[in-house]
Amino acid sequence: MAMTGVLRPGHAQIRVLDLEESVAWYTNVMGLVPMGRDVQGRAYFKTRQERDHHSIILRQADRAGMDFFGFKVLDNATLNHLEKKLVAHGVRTERIPAGDLLETGERVRFNLPTGHAIELYAEKKDVGNGMGYVNPDVDVLEGKGIAPTRMDHCLIYGPDIDANRELFEKVLDFTLVERVKLEDGTTDLATWLTCSAKAHDIAMVRHNEPDKMHHVSFRLDTWEQVLRAADIMSKNRTSIDFGPTRHGITQGTTIYFFDPSGNRLETFCGGYDHYPDMHPITWTWDEVGAGIYYHARKLNDTFLTVVT
Amino acid sequence: MAMTGVLRPGHAQIRVLDLEESVAWYTNVMGLVPMGRDVQGRAYFKTRQERDHHSIILRQADRAGMDFFGFKVLDNATLNHLEKKLVAHGVRTERIPAGDLLETGERVRFNLPTGHAIELYAEKKDVGNGMGYVNPDVDVLEGKGIAPTRMDHCLIYGPDIDANRELFEKVLDFTLVERVKLEDGTTDLATWLTCSAKAHDIAMVRHNEPDKMHHVSFRLDTWEQVLRAADIMSKNRTSIDFGPTRHGITQGTTIYFFDPSGNRLETFCGGYDHYPDMHPITWTWDEVGAGIYYHARKLNDTFLTVVT
Amino acid sequence: MAMTGVLRPGHAQIRVLDLEESVAWYTNVMGLVPMGRDVQGRAYFKTRQERDHHSIILRQADRAGMDFFGFKVLDNATLNHLEKKLVAHGVRTERIPAGDLLETGERVRFNLPTGHAIELYAEKKDVGNGMGYVNPDVDVLEGKGIAPTRMDHCLIYGPDIDANRELFEKVLDFTLVERVKLEDGTTDLATWLTCSAKAHDIAMVRHNEPDKMHHVSFRLDTWEQVLRAADIMSKNRTSIDFGPTRHGITQGTTIYFFDPSGNRLETFCGGYDHYPDMHPITWTWDEVGAGIYYHARKLNDTFLTVVT
Amino acid sequence: MAMTGVLRPGHAQIRVLDLEESVAWYTNVMGLVPMGRDVQGRAYFKTRQERDHHSIILRQADRAGMDFFGFKVLDNATLNHLEKKLVAHGVRTERIPAGDLLETGERVRFNLPTGHAIELYAEKKDVGNGMGYVNPDVDVLEGKGIAPTRMDHCLIYGPDIDANRELFEKVLDFTLVERVKLEDGTTDLATWLTCSAKAHDIAMVRHNEPDKMHHVSFRLDTWEQVLRAADIMSKNRTSIDFGPTRHGITQGTTIYFFDPSGNRLETFCGGYDHYPDMHPITWTWDEVGAGIYYHARKLNDTFLTVVT
Repeated sequence: MAMTGVLRPGHAQIRVLDLEESVAWYTNVMGLVPMGRDVQGRAYFKTRQERDHHSIILRQADRAGMDFFGFKVLDNATLNHLEKKLVAHGVRTERIPAGDLLETGERVRFNLPTGHAIELYAEKKDVGNGMGYVNPDVDVLEGKGIAPTRMDHCLIYGPDIDANRELFEKVLDFTLVERVKLEDGTTDLATWLTCSAKAHDIAMVRHNEPDKMHHVSFRLDTWEQVLRAADIMSKNRTSIDFGPTRHGITQGTTIYFFDPSGNRLETFCGGYDHYPDMHPITWTWDEVGAGIYYHARKLNDTFLTVVT
Repeated sequence: MAMTGVLRPGHAQIRVLDLEESVAWYTNVMGLVPMGRDVQGRAYFKTRQERDHHSIILRQADRAGMDFFGFKVLDNATLNHLEKKLVAHGVRTERIPAGDLLETGERVRFNLPTGHAIELYAEKKDVGNGMGYVNPDVDVLEGKGIAPTRMDHCLIYGPDIDANRELFEKVLDFTLVERVKLEDGTTDLATWLTCSAKAHDIAMVRHNEPDKMHHVSFRLDTWEQVLRAADIMSKNRTSIDFGPTRHGITQGTTIYFFDPSGNRLETFCGGYDHYPDMHPITWTWDEVGAGIYYHARKLNDTFLTVVT
Repeated sequence: MAMTGVLRPGHAQIRVLDLEESVAWYTNVMGLVPMGRDVQGRAYFKTRQERDHHSIILRQADRAGMDFFGFKVLDNATLNHLEKKLVAHGVRTERIPAGDLLETGERVRFNLPTGHAIELYAEKKDVGNGMGYVNPDVDVLEGKGIAPTRMDHCLIYGPDIDANRELFEKVLDFTLVERVKLEDGTTDLATWLTCSAKAHDIAMVRHNEPDKMHHVSFRLDTWEQVLRAADIMSKNRTSIDFGPTRHGITQGTTIYFFDPSGNRLETFCGGYDHYPDMHPITWTWDEVGAGIYYHARKLNDTFLTVVT
Repeated sequence: MAMTGVLRPGHAQIRVLDLEESVAWYTNVMGLVPMGRDVQGRAYFKTRQERDHHSIILRQADRAGMDFFGFKVLDNATLNHLEKKLVAHGVRTERIPAGDLLETGERVRFNLPTGHAIELYAEKKDVGNGMGYVNPDVDVLEGKGIAPTRMDHCLIYGPDIDANRELFEKVLDFTLVERVKLEDGTTDLATWLTCSAKAHDIAMVRHNEPDKMHHVSFRLDTWEQVLRAADIMSKNRTSIDFGPTRHGITQGTTIYFFDPSGNRLETFCGGYDHYPDMHPITWTWDEVGAGIYYHARKLNDTFLTVVT
């Protein structure tokens, strides 16, 4: 395949403070499809259009945040190969048995230098998007909630994002798409990386605490759906952090908002294609505001401080 | 890289009957950026957002059609590797020297079983999209013409599309995304293939004549730009073949229309992501109408008959 | 008021061949809100956003078509005044008692020179749009079906459209917005008239049979909702006559389609503002195709022939 | 006519601190069409789609703000009639001779109780929108700048908005569409009024200083053009006050931004139809934030304080 190795973001396990309230909110406001619960009581969701069994897992906990973020790889041979590369890179890996997550094969878990748990896996049950694989109709937006197309990427915060980037580039074959420099002009404040031709599959910001989540992002297909999403948020009194607006970085349109536990989520739309032969884009410290919020051209208070 | 091998469609050389008229039309109606002419008199164009030097080459000729369609590959090692695979597959390849196309490296050319000339190349000058690589602004649509985002794919017509598919899958690592079956339920009338995570990078329809072009497609980012494109076509008395409408296949929105020489072009927007782990979609003969034109649910006269 | 006299299209009574099938279709595919039935068995509907009790009445009959089309006027004084003007113009009027249509006051009914029954009325119960009149939320599109904003206008076919126009202009104070001329350059093939600042509140085409309905139109707010409407039609195997496309006349975007009884309906979006000080627009016979279908620039077979 | 009396907002004269800089900005960033200058040096503009000679007049001055706001009325009889009604209401009127504003007939000027100068006029030269009145093409957006459809309304600040409302309702036949109440639950903080079927043609906020302008608003047809407008503002380093977002009041989408002299302008899109038979909407003090900015649900610092 010309698409090989790590294919795409596959799942995020998010900690919530009140599971039932969160299940209702992810179902009715986010418009995700509930896909059952496991013996640990975790609640599973997918978007309507995703074909794999789930992309979001909610776990009740006493603090918000993200337990782990998983990427689907091409096949089991790829999984084994990437695990060997991780070990050769000095990374300690762990195998989580098949079935620990519902309908999901064995996972290879490891920690990033920033402390975040990342997983790779090759198998998750194809449950389809409800349209079938023969003469499918278009899945018209007729249901409740925001109903994003897919779980798209995450932005994580932690100290050593340089070591993170090295691991993603050298071991997992990601490509650098954009970066923001600190005032010194050399240190990266933040980097955006892709394993495909999207503007980003994961991003990271330098931050003194390890293992922090800034947001998990869901894709919307159109700017009009971004407006509809903001309307749904307001109507449901969901707290909006910022937006609707456009990012200068990736040029996608965005709303940042909070789930009932205070986890920041994003609806993301657009963003240019980035192929590995393309030059990365650099933002200087004085223009970081325009990079994050293209219209306002300055950061809001929460962007660099509120994480879970 | 997780994106390796063949990256994307890179250029199409199109034959036109009146070069100056066509240059004016591709500039003012299509809204492409003229990128100069070579010693053979061929005229080069790129979209505003493309970063490589060109994606469309016009050559004056006494009949319309497409001379060749080129794909960019990751690097020269990939180019050499894919040439070896082609030869091992029994395909005769030819090297076109660097510089034959402006600002373009050496190309490997070969003919598909359907008779079409395909090229692979690793190098084309990065001239940028005018926004630069440091603190870029958004490139607002303020100019003349349709101004698509990128040259996106082509649809070719020819006899042995099974052998074509085998070559694209086995040698060039493309993936089957969708297919239409003939009345017998087994033979493919048409196939859609991708080398990335797009719904298609090339497609082909079974047809008795070899080396025919159905259309070269340009991407638009929004359905509103599709409407604007149709308005521009009407205002300029460009002949519209069909649309605006939606394809059932790929679920993208579309307009088919003709350049002044009768070459069919398309504006294409949307289309779902397809990764190589995903199940292909099959259309049966009785639903081919809905597959091609989702709203009308039947083919128009020209779809299977008018090619150049 | 600066808006006085006839305010807007208020209701259309449509004949359907199978009432229950039609009630299901107008509810689930059109996305109208069922508003009850009367003692005659007629079924009432409104759009979600309309505040008055109903805008569509379905009556079971053995042939399709429109029984009457009603306009709401400012108040009862206006109703009496306009009836006097009608009588002075030589028009025979009839009073339909309050309550004949559910939640509707007394109606003044008369026949146009083209044979169509038109009604004026001043009172219909304000049932609201579900958002209330204090701190209303936005009514997000989360339900089933096309869900238009309002019943917008109708296009009628009949012989003496000149006399129609005279009545609408002189008695009901409508304004001519656009017209299409026949080949002779003087006779009107069709006229578009407004009683407000919309591009049209009623339109009429010259036709040999009296009392024919071409379509009743429903407004959509965006071109993206036009696409969604076409998708819903295809998914429900609703027969689409033409579109999505744009009209040259009014410049609105459109889909023509048929209800289960063969009545043509339209989704209409956009259209410019027209105030009574503005110059009307004229289309010549050779450009009528572009006037009706701006992108195709020619009429389809059904436009001048299929009416109910 | 069913549309009579005051038809629509017709022009606003805005004071700018540097005329040449402002002419360049209103031309290139706003995308208005320059329509010449008069002997006083005032610069005239219209939108591409407006047919009357101009809607914006810029006057060089040493402080920003709005000199006057004009409404077009149906005809000279209406102008005379409304002047009599004004005088009968105790308002002192003044006649400005024809030609004082380029291509404009005689104007009746008077001051509102809030101190603002308002004008009525019946005649302004129809220069057309460039598409002609026979077989017009669609005016595709191909030029520079935001290119709004029309000058839409203004929001003024001053002390006695109750007396303003009485004058607009009783003398000029405007209709109340929405209102915001102060904490006492009875006093209006703000009112939105229409002379047509739009959600507002003028609005006013209670404020201790007389004769203040909050913003002059320009209409855009689509939410995608709102995004394009915000992109153009950012690219040109135009200061954005708030948005893109949606108003709860009128439900239109909006960007507030400043011209080079600090005059706040708005791009406004959408907004529901309001006819004079419809119930006005009331916002309570505790929900004024959601009324102004539906997504953020709270006012920003500048909304009640920054005026010119």
